[in-house]
Amino acid sequence: MTHPLFQKHKATLDAALEAIRTRGYWSPYPEAPSPKIYGETAKEDGERAMQARIGKRFALDQPGISGWLATERSPYGVTLDIHYPECDTEALLAAARSAQSAWQRVGAAGRVGICLEMLDRINRRSFEIAQAVMLTTGQGWMMAFQAGGPHAQDRGLEAVAYAWDEMSRIPSESIWEKPQGKNPPLKMQKQFEIVGRGVALVIGCGTFPTWNTYPGLFAALATGNPVIVKPHPNAVLPAAITVEIAREVLQEQGLDPNLVSLAVFENPARTRALATDPRVRSIDFTGSNVFGQWLMDNARQAQVYAELAGVNHVVIESTDRYKGMLRNLAFTLSLYAGQMCTTTQAIIVPADGIETDQGHKSFDDVAADLATALETFLADTNVATAVLGAIQSEATLARIEEAHTLGRVVLASKRIDHPDFPSAEVRTPVLLACDAADESLYMEERFGPIAFVVKTADAAAAIALAERLGSERGALTAGIYSTRDEVVQAMTEASWHAGVALSINLTSGVFVNQSGAFSDYHGTGMNPAANAAYSDSAFVANRFRVIQRRRHID
Amino acid sequence: MTHPLFQKHKATLDAALEAIRTRGYWSPYPEAPSPKIYGETAKEDGERAMQARIGKRFALDQPGISGWLATERSPYGVTLDIHYPECDTEALLAAARSAQSAWQRVGAAGRVGICLEMLDRINRRSFEIAQAVMLTTGQGWMMAFQAGGPHAQDRGLEAVAYAWDEMSRIPSESIWEKPQGKNPPLKMQKQFEIVGRGVALVIGCGTFPTWNTYPGLFAALATGNPVIVKPHPNAVLPAAITVEIAREVLQEQGLDPNLVSLAVFENPARTRALATDPRVRSIDFTGSNVFGQWLMDNARQAQVYAELAGVNHVVIESTDRYKGMLRNLAFTLSLYAGQMCTTTQAIIVPADGIETDQGHKSFDDVAADLATALETFLADTNVATAVLGAIQSEATLARIEEAHTLGRVVLASKRIDHPDFPSAEVRTPVLLACDAADESLYMEERFGPIAFVVKTADAAAAIALAERLGSERGALTAGIYSTRDEVVQAMTEASWHAGVALSINLTSGVFVNQSGAFSDYHGTGMNPAANAAYSDSAFVANRFRVIQRRRHID
Repeated sequence: MTHPLFQKHKATLDAALEAIRTRGYWSPYPEAPSPKIYGETAKEDGERAMQARIGKRFALDQPGISGWLATERSPYGVTLDIHYPECDTEALLAAARSAQSAWQRVGAAGRVGICLEMLDRINRRSFEIAQAVMLTTGQGWMMAFQAGGPHAQDRGLEAVAYAWDEMSRIPSESIWEKPQGKNPPLKMQKQFEIVGRGVALVIGCGTFPTWNTYPGLFAALATGNPVIVKPHPNAVLPAAITVEIAREVLQEQGLDPNLVSLAVFENPARTRALATDPRVRSIDFTGSNVFGQWLMDNARQAQVYAELAGVNHVVIESTDRYKGMLRNLAFTLSLYAGQMCTTTQAIIVPADGIETDQGHKSFDDVAADLATALETFLADTNVATAVLGAIQSEATLARIEEAHTLGRVVLASKRIDHPDFPSAEVRTPVLLACDAADESLYMEERFGPIAFVVKTADAAAAIALAERLGSERGALTAGIYSTRDEVVQAMTEASWHAGVALSINLTSGVFVNQSGAFSDYHGTGMNPAANAAYSDSAFVANRFRVIQRRRHID
Repeated sequence: MTHPLFQKHKATLDAALEAIRTRGYWSPYPEAPSPKIYGETAKEDGERAMQARIGKRFALDQPGISGWLATERSPYGVTLDIHYPECDTEALLAAARSAQSAWQRVGAAGRVGICLEMLDRINRRSFEIAQAVMLTTGQGWMMAFQAGGPHAQDRGLEAVAYAWDEMSRIPSESIWEKPQGKNPPLKMQKQFEIVGRGVALVIGCGTFPTWNTYPGLFAALATGNPVIVKPHPNAVLPAAITVEIAREVLQEQGLDPNLVSLAVFENPARTRALATDPRVRSIDFTGSNVFGQWLMDNARQAQVYAELAGVNHVVIESTDRYKGMLRNLAFTLSLYAGQMCTTTQAIIVPADGIETDQGHKSFDDVAADLATALETFLADTNVATAVLGAIQSEATLARIEEAHTLGRVVLASKRIDHPDFPSAEVRTPVLLACDAADESLYMEERFGPIAFVVKTADAAAAIALAERLGSERGALTAGIYSTRDEVVQAMTEASWHAGVALSINLTSGVFVNQSGAFSDYHGTGMNPAANAAYSDSAFVANRFRVIQRRRHID
């Protein structure tokens, strides 16, 4: 039942198990990019490792290599030109399947130990991964380090902890003894084997190639499944490094490295063929509603865990920290230029305005003051470029342009020159105002730095609208600002109905678009924005089955 | 966090939690229909209660009653003529939804306590329910008592235990405190609410109206969902009594009884309309592949837990207890005339025959000896009628007739006159022999007392066929008889690949078609016969979501 790597990482696992039960703050992977923690040369080593990849082949000894593909275009304008192996789908699937039995035999503790070793090594490569995340996604460096490194690792570990929590409660063996009155009891030995359901496909997104990949990758792996990672074509490198590390650990353990492989395709039809192959039994997907819905409609042989679009929202009814609220919201809207699946899009304010510690503020005051807060926060170019990062896709750039024709522009988006990356497309948020009735404007996700201040008749209408946005359009995050308990309670009930996590009166250093592993559930799985959460027991329990056998014993 | 009924039943819950972790034998509901346990007059009381229902209206104070329907035809030929309320679907759904919030507020412990009280009362009505199960399904009395009473209650309790096991690990509140270097820590209070996903629909089958209904009913209820029970038209009464008890307990607790309601429809289209209503978020279904597949294809808004058809099978390679094996198989094939979802259909034997403690037996010997064992076991009419019960449906009667044209008849089915019920359709099993190549004969489920002895080239081919039957056609049970460890090991690995529970060398008082709650997983959820198991964490974890809220505290 034990394994050297399980023993090695047991203290981390135990602490993670305690953390998911108590849900306080905890992390084993320091988020401070400090040389004292990660080593004096860690930053330079990471940069050097990144530079060494540029223009080269990323060698992975996978089966069925038919060619080499370079698909990445850096939002910072840096030439990457890294070539990844394009492998035959059948070869990847067959290799994944043939690696599964030995992985099953390693047992739950062995699998968990090996996953924790992978995460530990990934953690030590955080600076290299940060470079890869930054250059492929357009995130600012600090965010790329934290969200792409330690925070993503936290989410991976969290999934492993949930997997262990479920698997460890299944005994490997039992003795069943049923009394038979005066006769001797019936006595049986029963054995219970945890069996992964089959090949897991993890489809990454272009903005968070590790944070949104690690939960599915490690949940599937720990529960006994081979995993094929299919990254977004524009953010392959962070996934490729991760796969490389996983394969290295497997090989060291005498296991088949093809248990974890990377799928990079020229033709998107190959992703669809892979996703619908009968051997693929689970799919973790983060991305568009269009492809997510296609997967749910067509990959019916697989359990699909999908994080899709939503309309995140905040209701402002009143506040006793007006400036803190505005600063908080300005940061939320600015961080990675709104390219987070958790960024607020609709800020819902009653037509009559709100009461604050700075006196009554009209609807227009709130909109104008938020615009000012954004301008003030982003006035320093160094701060602005560090927080905003670069715009990840052409589609988002186009949406920003188009946004200026939607509703009343309270604050226009500006292009900022990045001091270090002249070709980087850096944009400040556009803030719009509209009436609740203008549903076509704000009721669909407009991914990127685009937010609406939405006018409702009153606070009750604001809360009703929030509930409807969550229920009908989906949301990963919701916020409420109010000094009145009954309003907070009404919004709380709305959040239960819509199935959205709620942040109340955030005015300091926590932001509605941030969720911390082991404590905050990311998504709930209860509204159209996501059918699963990072992480809960539902995220892992369906990824394996228990196959029993029984026989009489004397 | 506590509730009087939770306290009342805590010892039972704790023992159930211990049982699902250790998976030994345990049950709080005695399976012996003993007057010492259930009361001196329990049997007569149950019969009297049953008699009092006949020809009457089954009064349930549900909303939207538009008429009264009597749909049951007893396989024993007893006139039932019990009229159930037909309710407007919209009224049932609206009432279910409006009952949900208060149920959520009761909290996990309260819900679990109330579910355990319901089960306790159901247990006390076991004799009445046994009568209802016997007369509607055709089961023999003892089986109706045990499988319809205590064993079904066990499965209900098991689901509640799993639900509690998952829910109890979610704290209702936490304090999150994140260090900020030299600055004061960020500190938040987080609260976590368990929210049911919405209306649960539980669609029962005609053969096991309680055993296959209680897991879904109690899993959904305990996790915070209102439940609409839609029984099979021919086995309404056991479900109606259950719903009546549940509503009575809810009412006593000051809760809305419409949290649990009974749906009986004249027109099957109404079941389809109910199942596809957006408010229905989970469906537990036991029955045909045709309707099960329809539900999975059309009720896409709901999580569907389906138990469908399969081809259960036993491989005989060798045995050191030939007579015990034959007796064991004869009982398996006879019990409830093969009308169990777990009854063996294909008995796979190598062409060269098998080694036994009685010497070598040819393929034909094995088939003939099994036929003799069946004849011997069923020679006494009282034993035969008690074990076989009556044939539940016209379709099964027709299948028995047709079976005599499939393959070589080793033993023909006989009609037996039931001493107490002259119109009861009692039938003995038909045993056929065929070659493995005759796939059209044995490779689809032929529900009822119809079994095939299937000839394969050798033992390896037998195991390969077993794996293919499980993987492609599905199976809830598989068996192996062998004295050789390597054969048992090969069959074990086949059972992992096919995802089928395996029984090894059953030659005494445990039968492949029986599974005991708290110890045996019923189904695995990994092959076409069922996408879920009774019970595991996957059976409950997706039925609720955790909705959090967080705010700063000082």
